[in-house]
Amino acid sequence: MEKPRIGWIGTGVMGLSMAGHILAAGYPLTIYSRTKAKAQSLLDKGAQWAASPKAVGAASDIVFSIVGFPKDVEEVLLGEQGALAGMAQGGIVCDMTTSSPALAERIAQRAAAQGCMGMDCPVTGGDVGARNAALSIFVGGEAAGLERIRPLLQCMGKIIMPCGVAGMGQKGKLANQVAIAGVMFSTCESLLFAQEAGLDVQQWLETVAPGAAGSTAMNVLGRRCLKGDFAPGFFIEHFVKDLGLCLEECRRMGLVLPGLQAAEQAYRQMLGRGQGKLGTQALVGGIAEACGKAWQH
Amino acid sequence: MEKPRIGWIGTGVMGLSMAGHILAAGYPLTIYSRTKAKAQSLLDKGAQWAASPKAVGAASDIVFSIVGFPKDVEEVLLGEQGALAGMAQGGIVCDMTTSSPALAERIAQRAAAQGCMGMDCPVTGGDVGARNAALSIFVGGEAAGLERIRPLLQCMGKIIMPCGVAGMGQKGKLANQVAIAGVMFSTCESLLFAQEAGLDVQQWLETVAPGAAGSTAMNVLGRRCLKGDFAPGFFIEHFVKDLGLCLEECRRMGLVLPGLQAAEQAYRQMLGRGQGKLGTQALVGGIAEACGKAWQH
Repeated sequence: MEKPRIGWIGTGVMGLSMAGHILAAGYPLTIYSRTKAKAQSLLDKGAQWAASPKAVGAASDIVFSIVGFPKDVEEVLLGEQGALAGMAQGGIVCDMTTSSPALAERIAQRAAAQGCMGMDCPVTGGDVGARNAALSIFVGGEAAGLERIRPLLQCMGKIIMPCGVAGMGQKGKLANQVAIAGVMFSTCESLLFAQEAGLDVQQWLETVAPGAAGSTAMNVLGRRCLKGDFAPGFFIEHFVKDLGLCLEECRRMGLVLPGLQAAEQAYRQMLGRGQGKLGTQALVGGIAEACGKAWQH
Repeated sequence: MEKPRIGWIGTGVMGLSMAGHILAAGYPLTIYSRTKAKAQSLLDKGAQWAASPKAVGAASDIVFSIVGFPKDVEEVLLGEQGALAGMAQGGIVCDMTTSSPALAERIAQRAAAQGCMGMDCPVTGGDVGARNAALSIFVGGEAAGLERIRPLLQCMGKIIMPCGVAGMGQKGKLANQVAIAGVMFSTCESLLFAQEAGLDVQQWLETVAPGAAGSTAMNVLGRRCLKGDFAPGFFIEHFVKDLGLCLEECRRMGLVLPGLQAAEQAYRQMLGRGQGKLGTQALVGGIAEACGKAWQH
């Protein structure tokens, strides 16, 4: 069977690695990205450039997108120059951005209206997971669509979780972000408490991390905090977007999650102070700063 | 060298196991407990009963206490019938309750005034860690005191962290509780979000637990939530006490920790609704209930 023609929109840190795996697996690949230079390494390896998302759609059987914000998703998939506008009947658009479940539902409806399918497949695993094709992928949309894109998802990820109808993939990812909010608070607030209490914070972390207080975040990002390394694995500005989407879903569901609310506020304050390009672990400094203190590491 | 005579005050879930290890190591042991019946298994194995904490102090070179609340610590160590009132010069009182750093400082001062030493050695590792002599122990107090009690701590725990002067052991433990607050929010809020979003919560947990959102709490207590098992490994009423102590320290240090505050409030609401005897993982139901919803597992 001939390989489907793949389209790719968005070549940021995540998208670049992910599209690279698709290309390496031998699929014909057409790319559009806001900044062409960021796609150059893929073009050098044989990918085709398209001048617009619409042109990507016209050249592809299956189009993946992974961009910044829901408004970007809306533009590149549903806009006048969006992928669906160019796509023939039978195509699939698969958005891998962490985005709004309601928008994912809308994309699926728009796709269905022209005989296509819309899937939402946000991922977790970060830049390292993307590079090593070790992402976990939450899938929303029709089962028939999943069967068609599964070989491609397997090029990018290890765990594929079918979550339900369109929008449910986003909900699975947002639930993951709710959990992340808590472990970030756990890590950063406890480290800051330890510092202000006058403890040897490094030794304290080694003592508690193997126990009930331990988390992946404490082990990975807590150690970065101790080195004063606030470089982004994951940008605060993207996390604020994700937490806002989580809160929006909470409102739709009639749910009040006080920990999530507190995290969203703390990160939004940091965004307001111009710290959106730092990594999420910079929260340890953000909480300190809000009290007129400083993280000493 | 002759083994020091050990005193033990408090034979709850933790204390009973811990005192058992001391006895098994061959130390002469004198016990007082509010409820004598709870000490019976130790008395059957050769421990001596004393009618008051003061009598324990009079019979011992080193007295350990692990009781419920700071007011209990104050009573059994500093009270008229407390251990220090009975203790000869050169003795050590070592409180293993999670309690107030300020009280630990006061105990050390009172002890020093009569030629004794006061140490604070709260633990983490729960009932299982106590049973398996695998606790982590935070130690506050004089280095000379630690050297004298170290062989005894090694009967109960695996990791011994010297934290500094009197009170610092408590601060090390409280920082651990700040971290626990965050991982409990992470686990319970994300599970509840997943349920309300209509996800298969069990499958969702298996997907996210190995990733960046993962924590010991999610793996251990999250799974108990999925079985509807709210039995106490750790009582909510004790955690509310701990979180209150954390907030008190925050006020002393001029620190505002919004995640901690939110957790303390959520757990305090549950205490107010008569749920103090449930395990901390019951937070998943508590958050649901506060919104008029129910945890379905």
